[in-house]
Amino acid sequence: MTGNELMSGDIIDSNSAMIAQRLKDIGVEVKRKVTVSDDFSLLVDEISHIAKQADVLIVNGGLGPTSDDLTAEALAKVAGCDIDQHSEALTHIMRWCADRGAEVNEPNLKQTMLPKGCDIVANSVGSAVGIKMLVNNCTVICTPGVPRELKVMLDEEIIPFIKQKSPDSINVHTTRFQLFGYGESGLQKMLAENFPDWPESLEIGFRASLPLLELKITSRSTEDLTLKQIWLDKLQAYLGDHVIHEITDAPISIAQKVLLLLKADNKTLTTAESCTGGLIASLLTKEAGASASFHAGFVTYDNAIKSAVLNVDDNLLAKFGAVSEETVKAMAVGALAKSNSDYVIAVSGIAGPDGGTEEKPVGTVWIAWGDVNAIDSVCLQVKSNRWHFQNIVAAIGLDLIRRKLQRLNSTPRYFIERKAK
Amino acid sequence: MTGNELMSGDIIDSNSAMIAQRLKDIGVEVKRKVTVSDDFSLLVDEISHIAKQADVLIVNGGLGPTSDDLTAEALAKVAGCDIDQHSEALTHIMRWCADRGAEVNEPNLKQTMLPKGCDIVANSVGSAVGIKMLVNNCTVICTPGVPRELKVMLDEEIIPFIKQKSPDSINVHTTRFQLFGYGESGLQKMLAENFPDWPESLEIGFRASLPLLELKITSRSTEDLTLKQIWLDKLQAYLGDHVIHEITDAPISIAQKVLLLLKADNKTLTTAESCTGGLIASLLTKEAGASASFHAGFVTYDNAIKSAVLNVDDNLLAKFGAVSEETVKAMAVGALAKSNSDYVIAVSGIAGPDGGTEEKPVGTVWIAWGDVNAIDSVCLQVKSNRWHFQNIVAAIGLDLIRRKLQRLNSTPRYFIERKAK
Repeated sequence: MTGNELMSGDIIDSNSAMIAQRLKDIGVEVKRKVTVSDDFSLLVDEISHIAKQADVLIVNGGLGPTSDDLTAEALAKVAGCDIDQHSEALTHIMRWCADRGAEVNEPNLKQTMLPKGCDIVANSVGSAVGIKMLVNNCTVICTPGVPRELKVMLDEEIIPFIKQKSPDSINVHTTRFQLFGYGESGLQKMLAENFPDWPESLEIGFRASLPLLELKITSRSTEDLTLKQIWLDKLQAYLGDHVIHEITDAPISIAQKVLLLLKADNKTLTTAESCTGGLIASLLTKEAGASASFHAGFVTYDNAIKSAVLNVDDNLLAKFGAVSEETVKAMAVGALAKSNSDYVIAVSGIAGPDGGTEEKPVGTVWIAWGDVNAIDSVCLQVKSNRWHFQNIVAAIGLDLIRRKLQRLNSTPRYFIERKAK
Repeated sequence: MTGNELMSGDIIDSNSAMIAQRLKDIGVEVKRKVTVSDDFSLLVDEISHIAKQADVLIVNGGLGPTSDDLTAEALAKVAGCDIDQHSEALTHIMRWCADRGAEVNEPNLKQTMLPKGCDIVANSVGSAVGIKMLVNNCTVICTPGVPRELKVMLDEEIIPFIKQKSPDSINVHTTRFQLFGYGESGLQKMLAENFPDWPESLEIGFRASLPLLELKITSRSTEDLTLKQIWLDKLQAYLGDHVIHEITDAPISIAQKVLLLLKADNKTLTTAESCTGGLIASLLTKEAGASASFHAGFVTYDNAIKSAVLNVDDNLLAKFGAVSEETVKAMAVGALAKSNSDYVIAVSGIAGPDGGTEEKPVGTVWIAWGDVNAIDSVCLQVKSNRWHFQNIVAAIGLDLIRRKLQRLNSTPRYFIERKAK
């Protein structure tokens, strides 16, 4: 990894995690990672040192058009060759500029000056091509620092190349799915307790993408494929309705899942939010096409607004308080009526840090959800900081509507785990 | 940096950025960073290799109680000494457990087994102490992987130690402030054009914390202090009302700034959101204490809701469309009336990717803001992806209220830059 901005901490390096994950998917482990600043001699030393030890070295960054982009030159120095204009790189940059109606300029041309005799790695989304070159029996692959360009290069060129270089990797089979309602440690505990004889040859990986958890089951040989299916079935049967989505392409958000279900039924959803303050509405409208299924949201932060906007009875508010079953149900009924929507999520709770009482401590939340025929409600205890509380409550609200839309009747795990006293 | 989870990409390493930034603040540069998995011989090799070259080596991770925490043992191996129970570490862990009413257990005791003769680095927020030891004239400092613990150790022990080891650092003086309305490249261009003779000895650093930009001016000698003040004054005069906040403690968000101003005036704000879909309300209510100044928000995504909830005239919607000055002003007026608030932000635009027309392309947004006496409005063009569009529009809405509350009359830069055709 190269770049002053990485060394100074001005940006956090997510590229190396992307590379490691993609390699892990094909059964290849990253042994060692070195990050250096844009310093020519440091870069030469590192490339030279690693090329003596490794089969493959991926260099990331420093392919850009400015004077601190030194990767091509450093690689040439290590390989003991000159820098020269690469004809394929030139063709690429000329087409790139032509497509954008731009002139080829001096900085563009710098990006065509590569170590003599190297191969290029195509870049379908950026101006800089990658470099592939054998140095001391180590294949050095130089990639751009722009994450989007790196991703495409990994997908289209680098992963296929490394896969072919490491024949074991072709037998790696991975199934990934997303869960809601389990944290990483909770899932680990569950696995230890309920699947003590889980086969060693089936690797289980987790990845928290809050509020969801991504689960990955990997087998590394073709013989294990049947075994994998058997244990996958057992595991999914156990996890049941907590499984949101099997990932074939990209992971999804819980709001996306709800919008997909609403759209399939041609239904709409409204929100009446107190403690989450618009977060549920925002999570829904963040997704393209939300307008088909989401028409209205109400942020009724103050009691006067709960009655003025959602017709929550003032006497009821006075008697039971804002954080109560009566109020949250009345908010739900009011939002359904005002918006003429099919489904509703209403939440009222104490996000903190202030506002808690002995009876209703910080973290207490009432959630109501349903349709004109039936509004259900639950009181939960979500102990966390304010922002985390809001995110968990929003996700639970969305998950309850998902369960309603999917006609699931089982009790979600978080009803038990987060049960309010 | 050590840890399998870093090598596999399961977590993204933010600790090294934290270390680099804190060091940069005292004028110390990180030269090289190596990340290795929890592999004893790799760890020994790296520590030994770096200790021969560097004055100070910071090792992060691997101080925990489990079997894959190998740092103490690896350091002992490099130093050629034994592992032994460290009396101060034992005192620390006994007090730590006693404070929590817990028994000292086996894993706790493992954390007291340190290289013979090492010093400890106190950890006021965690069970694992850090290690400080001179090896080959290199001070090796081992720190815990938990970010919160690392942060406290940096603040309380490591930065003061390194500051004292590098006398130049005591003359480093930094001023940091936050801007809204400038991107990194726009600011760089402005500086090149308007401050061509900016003194070389005054370092300027940027840090994008979208939607704000953090600007940092550093002088590295006491003689430069007057110079720094002169140029700082010039720069701040030029940037004018785009400066939101001078950072003395922590950076703030634009929503926090607005809430502070509202609270100081004892006023309330309401929101009427179409294209931002609740994001402005969510940004406000994310902040603790928002309820004092924010009572109500309306997400009126659908036209029928704009009229049903905010009394926007149907004829007006039919004549001018949802994305128009007339509609957004009517939304603002409606929201003020419904919520009985003092100030209002209303937005209606086309977030995309669909919904654009030739006359009103994706990225077009009408924003209205003001109070019962005066509602202003502006039409801007924010070309970006959906989520980015929503965030920029939300921030602009909040900034316009900030300007109103601060009684600023200058034209913000984004009015010119993002002017709709």
